[in-house]
Amino acid sequence: MGQTLAEKILQNHTDEQVTGAGQIVQCKVDMVLANDITAPLAIKSFKAMGAKKVFDRDKISLVCDHFTPNKDIDSAEQVKVVRDFAEEMGVTHYYECGEVGVEHALLPEKGIVGPGYVVIGADSHTCTYGGLGAFATGMGSTDVGAGMALGETWFKVPPTIRVNLTGTPGKYVGAKDFVLNQIGILGVSGALYKALEYGGEVVDNMTIEGRMTIANMAIEAGGKVGLFPVDQKTLDYSSKAGFKGGELMTPDADAVYERVVDIDVTGMAPQVACPHLPDNVKPVDETAGLKIHQAVIGSCTNGRIEDMREAAEVLKGRKVDPKVRCIILPATPSIWKACMQEGLMEIFMDAGCIVGPPTCGPCLGGHMGILAGGERAISTTNRNFKGRMGSLESEVFLSNPAVAAASAVAGEIINPAKL
Amino acid sequence: MGQTLAEKILQNHTDEQVTGAGQIVQCKVDMVLANDITAPLAIKSFKAMGAKKVFDRDKISLVCDHFTPNKDIDSAEQVKVVRDFAEEMGVTHYYECGEVGVEHALLPEKGIVGPGYVVIGADSHTCTYGGLGAFATGMGSTDVGAGMALGETWFKVPPTIRVNLTGTPGKYVGAKDFVLNQIGILGVSGALYKALEYGGEVVDNMTIEGRMTIANMAIEAGGKVGLFPVDQKTLDYSSKAGFKGGELMTPDADAVYERVVDIDVTGMAPQVACPHLPDNVKPVDETAGLKIHQAVIGSCTNGRIEDMREAAEVLKGRKVDPKVRCIILPATPSIWKACMQEGLMEIFMDAGCIVGPPTCGPCLGGHMGILAGGERAISTTNRNFKGRMGSLESEVFLSNPAVAAASAVAGEIINPAKL
Repeated sequence: MGQTLAEKILQNHTDEQVTGAGQIVQCKVDMVLANDITAPLAIKSFKAMGAKKVFDRDKISLVCDHFTPNKDIDSAEQVKVVRDFAEEMGVTHYYECGEVGVEHALLPEKGIVGPGYVVIGADSHTCTYGGLGAFATGMGSTDVGAGMALGETWFKVPPTIRVNLTGTPGKYVGAKDFVLNQIGILGVSGALYKALEYGGEVVDNMTIEGRMTIANMAIEAGGKVGLFPVDQKTLDYSSKAGFKGGELMTPDADAVYERVVDIDVTGMAPQVACPHLPDNVKPVDETAGLKIHQAVIGSCTNGRIEDMREAAEVLKGRKVDPKVRCIILPATPSIWKACMQEGLMEIFMDAGCIVGPPTCGPCLGGHMGILAGGERAISTTNRNFKGRMGSLESEVFLSNPAVAAASAVAGEIINPAKL
Repeated sequence: MGQTLAEKILQNHTDEQVTGAGQIVQCKVDMVLANDITAPLAIKSFKAMGAKKVFDRDKISLVCDHFTPNKDIDSAEQVKVVRDFAEEMGVTHYYECGEVGVEHALLPEKGIVGPGYVVIGADSHTCTYGGLGAFATGMGSTDVGAGMALGETWFKVPPTIRVNLTGTPGKYVGAKDFVLNQIGILGVSGALYKALEYGGEVVDNMTIEGRMTIANMAIEAGGKVGLFPVDQKTLDYSSKAGFKGGELMTPDADAVYERVVDIDVTGMAPQVACPHLPDNVKPVDETAGLKIHQAVIGSCTNGRIEDMREAAEVLKGRKVDPKVRCIILPATPSIWKACMQEGLMEIFMDAGCIVGPPTCGPCLGGHMGILAGGERAISTTNRNFKGRMGSLESEVFLSNPAVAAASAVAGEIINPAKL
């Protein structure tokens, strides 16, 4: 019986024979991740277990990215807990201060995660690394604490939904639109504890950044992982980032899928997820004209250099509506510098944007752009749950960077093609 | 009887004859200022007075700079109150979104305040504009609310302490050091409800930015205002910023001073104010070797382009200690852009700094760099009261930008000359 991508990767991390969906397997993990919000909880359970040291100091990543630069005393104290633990355990991949970036942008960029890896993280968007062909998934902090001690965990082998992306996308339509569209089709629990596996000509032509954008939102359909095949492009990306290892990987021709979803992206409009769920997806024109107070361009979904370029292309020579806060958050220091070197920062500043340091910031209602009651934001982030970015009486619309940038200029949601 | 600078400016704003210290005079005000923290209170008292409109829509400045980009729901709601009021009243000088900068850097830069003005602001560092020869002073929000309605207020004419700065400063010694040194001499209440008036060859040679740094901290000695003469340099600066009016102004030769303080800056070391008061001032070498966790370079005291250049000169080709968060906050969007255009941003990023958007941020424990218990910061800001930047168990040392930058590199407080 052939194997899906999920089954292949798990197979490489367990002594058991992976036979199919539903089976419980004990797996070694290649990387265990936590951040400034979740690590303190993971550390607490690590210590409650009686653990004295981490299973491998090179296989733990601790990234203080959510509420940094420290937004308040509580967040400062949280970071301190993580910093002290990292020092005590000699954790190699500890990121704070000027080195920190949004974890799911930072780890691939640093070559800390890569093709074929099993990664568990105390953050739901750990699934991002599926774009590199890694079985990467979010877990509760307690499980992650155990993972830090043991270097292994159990999984129920997920059934796989295969998503084939075909056709030719138009201008201002890309990875974010494909994934929003797909979440609209599946629903927010349509892939609950299932693997999403992507393929088709659109995937073949897609950048690694684009694949990570799609994998990042697997969880928004309930997916355990969102997996892409490993092609030469993946290997080139990973080896350039300094990742050691990784090999070409495709699902077997006779792999068993629970469901196959075929999406032709030809003629697809830019997609917008309306409040208050990521599956409430409409073509942008159906939301056009809604006044906005804030636009956020960044996050682990769309804070990479490609996204910055896409936003800058729209903002170049234009001005943000004076009533709109257009907050640009390049996801890592390298991306921030690239924005500067490529002249994107100049475009952002000339347009009247606010450029922040790398942080998750407003995405999760953390800081750096929280909404008051009655305010509406368009955002390139991944969740628009009620109150996610601030007041319970605020609204968040999710889109790609071009739509967010165009809307910032128009002061209302707009199709960038019509700006 | 001759008049001091303070008396001259008040004289120009009242129908009464200003005869000397202690007299109560009713004065017209040229500009009334509030920010995102204080404006909501001022608006509340404005409305409680039954006021229906502001005395002059062009003479009110509302700057949402303290907790922006909005750090939380409460701060977002505060900004909303200010925004709605500004719109309702048609306030000309309302700053939010991508246009916002630290108020006391922004207003001089925009030519909204200038020489000879009387400015009242619901912010204690309103005294900054004394660097331009404006009688500018902080007031409670209630008084400022009344000022917004009436366009006038009462003052008790302050006695004046004359500070003469003479001599030639060494490298890495400048305006911030002079004012720290002076606060050390006077004490934090040494100028309580008094005007500080500066003169001497050092002042003549000083940039307007440097004068504003000194005037900014007048309040740290309790001063009502910190006043500089208006010379050609002031007029050039102001007219370039778009300020209309202003004329040369010096105190009368026979002006009456309560006290004269002569400070020879020759041989002065860089100064550091130790916890927990701005008058606990020592030469930097006496504090050298103290480990730091954070360095903050910015604020209304030292967030101007000169300060950024001073920090960059030290940071160029060096790396911030990996355990130190070196947070750079250019005070306005123009300064931010100038940093980019002059290559300073590149230096900051290469050194491993965190560059934030223009905000007061950590200075007042707001956001963007709050300290945990047991942490120590060196900061170019103006106050080091217990708990000012976060935990009551944290410590803040105040210095000039070169000392802060050098300390960030060393990981401990250091004289930049010894880096």
